[in-house]
Amino acid sequence: MAAFDTTEHSHRRFNPLTGEWILVSPHRSKRPWQGQQEEPEADSRPAYDPTCYLCPGNTRAGGAVNPAYDSTFVFDNDFAALQADVPAGSVNVGGLLRAEAESGVARVICFSPRHDLTLPEMEPAAIRHVVEVWVEQYQELGARDDINYVQIFENKGFMMGCSNPHPHGQIWAQRTVPADPAKETVQQAAYFAEHGRSLLLDYVELELREQTRVVYQNEHFVTLVPYWAVWPFETMILPRRHVTSIEQLTDAEKNSFAEALRDLTIRYDNLFQISFPYSAGLHQRPTDGQQHESWHVHMHFYPPLLRSAAVRKFMVGYEMLANPQRDITPEWAAERLRSLPTVHYKQAAK
Amino acid sequence: MAAFDTTEHSHRRFNPLTGEWILVSPHRSKRPWQGQQEEPEADSRPAYDPTCYLCPGNTRAGGAVNPAYDSTFVFDNDFAALQADVPAGSVNVGGLLRAEAESGVARVICFSPRHDLTLPEMEPAAIRHVVEVWVEQYQELGARDDINYVQIFENKGFMMGCSNPHPHGQIWAQRTVPADPAKETVQQAAYFAEHGRSLLLDYVELELREQTRVVYQNEHFVTLVPYWAVWPFETMILPRRHVTSIEQLTDAEKNSFAEALRDLTIRYDNLFQISFPYSAGLHQRPTDGQQHESWHVHMHFYPPLLRSAAVRKFMVGYEMLANPQRDITPEWAAERLRSLPTVHYKQAAK
Ligand SMILES: O=P(O)(O)O[C@H]1O[C@H](CO)[C@@H](O)[C@H](O)[C@H]1O
Ligand SMILES: O=P(O)(O)O[C@H]1O[C@H](CO)[C@@H](O)[C@H](O)[C@H]1O
Repeated sequence: MAAFDTTEHSHRRFNPLTGEWILVSPHRSKRPWQGQQEEPEADSRPAYDPTCYLCPGNTRAGGAVNPAYDSTFVFDNDFAALQADVPAGSVNVGGLLRAEAESGVARVICFSPRHDLTLPEMEPAAIRHVVEVWVEQYQELGARDDINYVQIFENKGFMMGCSNPHPHGQIWAQRTVPADPAKETVQQAAYFAEHGRSLLLDYVELELREQTRVVYQNEHFVTLVPYWAVWPFETMILPRRHVTSIEQLTDAEKNSFAEALRDLTIRYDNLFQISFPYSAGLHQRPTDGQQHESWHVHMHFYPPLLRSAAVRKFMVGYEMLANPQRDITPEWAAERLRSLPTVHYKQAAK
Repeated sequence: MAAFDTTEHSHRRFNPLTGEWILVSPHRSKRPWQGQQEEPEADSRPAYDPTCYLCPGNTRAGGAVNPAYDSTFVFDNDFAALQADVPAGSVNVGGLLRAEAESGVARVICFSPRHDLTLPEMEPAAIRHVVEVWVEQYQELGARDDINYVQIFENKGFMMGCSNPHPHGQIWAQRTVPADPAKETVQQAAYFAEHGRSLLLDYVELELREQTRVVYQNEHFVTLVPYWAVWPFETMILPRRHVTSIEQLTDAEKNSFAEALRDLTIRYDNLFQISFPYSAGLHQRPTDGQQHESWHVHMHFYPPLLRSAAVRKFMVGYEMLANPQRDITPEWAAERLRSLPTVHYKQAAK
């Protein structure tokens, strides 16, 4: 029998950040697809849309009026999933019905006044400005006694539940540390206790030596497809220095981060020559007053598309009930992303 | 300030089966929706489709020919995510790149020769027959030394990644116990060790007393919206007796189970008067040779729709990066499902 080969045989890979395994079925991308095809989203929008809730000067669903902003604009979500003024309280019936009040804040960050742009089409300086706003928000919200974790994220594209194409991200900040960052806290702390080093710094250095899963690198940041990626073209952007949160980044590092963001989002759009849908977000040190020296800030990108602009990966049945599963190898995905042009296809067509 | 009220205030609920919390934002269903609308699926199919891979007598993508079956039909998936003949092997680079071979079997179960039916439209005796096939498959696969867990599931509807509308489910059975059943094993064992009783039996009895989240009950089974439900209309079907797997069900219990299945899937179709999409599956005792006396078999239903046939819940951004979150309360969802007619809307229209 042939030797075990991760490019051929079904196998499991371990995610050291969460402590969980994923199932990889490399041979499976050959199966025919008679299922759902996605509608490509209209990709020509006006620079200003009078009916958009997020454009400068417009009135939002809640009745507030947006200022005539000219770079970014942050406001409290009109339909926030987290409320600040929740009375304390809890339920406990036999340990089986358990609930507790949860308070927090939800905000929206408009990335640009321009309704027709997305991150990969914005000027480098404008992307750099978005990074600055993330730092400010993390600091402002994280400083509050009632906020112990700040989740900064973006849903891009209707396929990812984004309800408005105007370029924007969100922040949900809350009293407790949510499930995923909590797992990453435990795993990173255990590694740090054992090795006296950052799990993700060791990981980045290993990947820089191997290069197989590296998509892009600059002086301060690396973009890679993690060995344990679940989504077909999932990536992570990480600093090459051990920093626990984005507030510790130097000016030069923030520039490098913005460049990595621009590079990755351009590659994504170029992959299928569409505005590429994804959910992305920063994971960093909880703001619960503890030091968390083992934390290593990073940004995850979870894009749903698999074979083309029209065929996505469905995380359903087996994945919802049993275990995450992927059909192509992370190494193959990294190779695809690495080989793409770094000039946006719309720009190149001009 | 008003007292803490789970129908009004953002809160977290605890899932004792997995040990994880979910975020509930009851007030949030009021937000306007300008995002993606789902296309209703065509819901009039012929009883036989010559181009369908699953209809009796047709040739499949892999080249095999289906028999002229007249009830159910089980075969090995032509594009199986799990392979039986994987050579043993593993990878471990510094504890950070870890992989191991995973072997298993993937099968397809056609529920009916009729291309135009789904579970809620099938005769009670035909649904009962599907239950029988599940029992047989669980026994046959579970008896194998190389199979330690048998995941039986169904993806219904294109929205749930189902690639063929012919009524069918799947089985993925494998060497290791996947993530979700593994968590449920730990949690149930801990409860059993502490209380000497089945976690889910105690839970079912509590829900039967409260009735608030019960959708349906018969002599042997209960359908309810779990206190910790994540998906808007998520439900569970559970036996009222402590049984670790479906092979322990008596004939009368199998009938009751089939009746509960029929009742729930009819209510689902009636909710928005469409063929209701979901992923569903059985969780039961791993087949690793251990006794697992704490296990209590149950079936989960995870349907994506939220407000109407066209508006689904997206588990994206915050949910993918931080924590599962829901917008309506489980109690409200149970009330909706309970109030629906139990005759299928197509039947009622005749
Ligand atoms: O096996 P199918 O029906 O082709 O595929 C479907 O179910 C599988 C198991 O849940 C998923 O991995 C696939 O993403 C989904 O499209
Ligand atoms: O807040 P939005 O953009 O209206 O809503 C979107 O993002 C949220 C946070 O990830 C999700 O809970 C919603 O399901 C999704 O549609």
